[in-house]
Amino acid sequence: MSDIKEMTPKYENDLFLRACKKMPVERTPVWIMRQAGRYLPEYRAVREKADFLTMCHTPELAALVTIQPVDIINVDAAILFSDILVIPEAMGMDFEMVESRGPVFHKPLRSEDDAKDLKEVDVTKKLKYVLDAVSLTKKALNGRVPLIGFSGSPWTLLTYMVEGKGSKNFSNIKRFIYNNPSLAHKVLDKIAKVVADYLSAKIEAGVDAVQIFDTWGGLLSQNDFAEFSLYYISKVISQIKRKDEPVIVFSKGVHYKLDALANSGADVIGLDWTMDIGEVKKITGGKVALQGNLDPPILYAGKEKIREEVKRVLSSFGQGSGHIFNLGHGILPDVDPENAKAMVQFAKEESKAFHCEEINAKSA
Amino acid sequence: MSDIKEMTPKYENDLFLRACKKMPVERTPVWIMRQAGRYLPEYRAVREKADFLTMCHTPELAALVTIQPVDIINVDAAILFSDILVIPEAMGMDFEMVESRGPVFHKPLRSEDDAKDLKEVDVTKKLKYVLDAVSLTKKALNGRVPLIGFSGSPWTLLTYMVEGKGSKNFSNIKRFIYNNPSLAHKVLDKIAKVVADYLSAKIEAGVDAVQIFDTWGGLLSQNDFAEFSLYYISKVISQIKRKDEPVIVFSKGVHYKLDALANSGADVIGLDWTMDIGEVKKITGGKVALQGNLDPPILYAGKEKIREEVKRVLSSFGQGSGHIFNLGHGILPDVDPENAKAMVQFAKEESKAFHCEEINAKSA
Repeated sequence: MSDIKEMTPKYENDLFLRACKKMPVERTPVWIMRQAGRYLPEYRAVREKADFLTMCHTPELAALVTIQPVDIINVDAAILFSDILVIPEAMGMDFEMVESRGPVFHKPLRSEDDAKDLKEVDVTKKLKYVLDAVSLTKKALNGRVPLIGFSGSPWTLLTYMVEGKGSKNFSNIKRFIYNNPSLAHKVLDKIAKVVADYLSAKIEAGVDAVQIFDTWGGLLSQNDFAEFSLYYISKVISQIKRKDEPVIVFSKGVHYKLDALANSGADVIGLDWTMDIGEVKKITGGKVALQGNLDPPILYAGKEKIREEVKRVLSSFGQGSGHIFNLGHGILPDVDPENAKAMVQFAKEESKAFHCEEINAKSA
Repeated sequence: MSDIKEMTPKYENDLFLRACKKMPVERTPVWIMRQAGRYLPEYRAVREKADFLTMCHTPELAALVTIQPVDIINVDAAILFSDILVIPEAMGMDFEMVESRGPVFHKPLRSEDDAKDLKEVDVTKKLKYVLDAVSLTKKALNGRVPLIGFSGSPWTLLTYMVEGKGSKNFSNIKRFIYNNPSLAHKVLDKIAKVVADYLSAKIEAGVDAVQIFDTWGGLLSQNDFAEFSLYYISKVISQIKRKDEPVIVFSKGVHYKLDALANSGADVIGLDWTMDIGEVKKITGGKVALQGNLDPPILYAGKEKIREEVKRVLSSFGQGSGHIFNLGHGILPDVDPENAKAMVQFAKEESKAFHCEEINAKSA
């Protein structure tokens, strides 16, 4: 990989990319998972005119809402508005977004026959609308901040495809892997290929980093996580065509195998709010940067409490680069945008104290 | 506390109580969370004639279903059929069980005024029906196996009381604690008192052990868990009137503060299926016994897989007493009872090899 410093002039603000590579920064960069979302009135105004999937499928609308949080709450990176289920959709599994229930697949994947129906995907054709959204967004961002692209992990996508809709016990996916592990592996392999192609194409189209969301990794016991999720995450990462674009892996609820995650090829590990980011820094021994991990509902609290909790996360990580400030999960839809904006501001202000050594080193 | 050996003659099978105290056993005892439940046709036959809450409120019915798994799947302990929400109910918060949605409170607790409406509880009056169920069950068990009583933890009860119904993001309870922590503490304190009285009364009525279910402990960040959940669990344990009846704490999703949990006064810590029981044994250093932790949906698999996974959990714990075999969460309602029975049998058979030293020591 080439030195990231070569890229530096591309962005007015490249703190996010520098922190992903554990390079010196004058303050901790900050973005928010699901920052292009319903908590923003500007987002809701767009959403009123188009349903969720239309927004995903229409490059102009996706680009429009992607940029909103950069303008409104001043985050240090944009993340392309999309949905992880565009991949199952491209593989031939139709679904609809049902208000207050989430995605519902018309025909969940349960059998060998269902698996045979999965289509090969030429991402540059089938998912061209996403790549177009990348180009449009890059133009509109005009070098202000980097752009992140994302995908679900193979395991997380399989979970949605097998469950078919929201689940309390995730009985269907567990039944699937415990009764027919070889079929599960066959499908995971197929999905992994599409995910790798998809993330490669996004990078080719211009995204500066990618995040793999392993939303359902934490459903698994430790051995099963290694077998059904982590293995395919590593496989995807090894197959992504990239120069120096960092890969972030966010495995929600995965409090174990952190050393293995750090050796998956990821540059950054995202942590949910139940983790102690300082402890994980010790366990992973500086091999990767860490992202996170404020409890999302803290944004319901008053400004003073928000500042205090921002400081707590920053202190837990401690001195030095390699931290990207974020929530420990997506921002909640009923949060006051003023509080999101305040959190971003507090993270920027309070983090300066944790980068003194780097600044001194730079100026020396 | 008196030596548990004095109690030994009370039960034909006291393996469960011995393991809770880390005393030598010839095999690992086994029971299943939610073993008196819908997966059993014999349970469904009772449930067809009475709704869930009527079953909780009627000592004869509660005793009847409590004993079923002892007869049918041969577990080493009974656990009194009940619901954790009998406490909020006794405090004046009415709810109903809505099919496939779970409990719905008529008026969730959200404000100072709501908190003022909470009633003091004389458990020997208000919850007499539970104590009667204990007596009936003890008679019916007739010394075959010990009987466990349970309660929700104060934090878990508060979560239900504030959310009022099932939740995806648990926004209401988080909003509650982040915006009005002092009110939260006041209510938690009130609940803790009732929980301690309730568990004391159950012990007085005859249960041999108690389990505190902290189902929603894992929603919290590590600091919040210590402040809002663990503190009150410790408080409850210190206030339970007991002789040598062990206390089990099951904090689902709590993968942190395990040393603190081990110092909470609990005799046993229950682990969910995402934990490595052998690793927790090392962390807690033999201070407590451990209970768990097979992934519940493994009971959907074939017998061979079930046996293999039972062995995996037993091997992870390793040699010696101090392990109570269980699932890592409640048994799922659509599990084949034959598989539950097989799991119990496998745990009994396969665990003998892990107690050789104790048996040798006894016979020496």
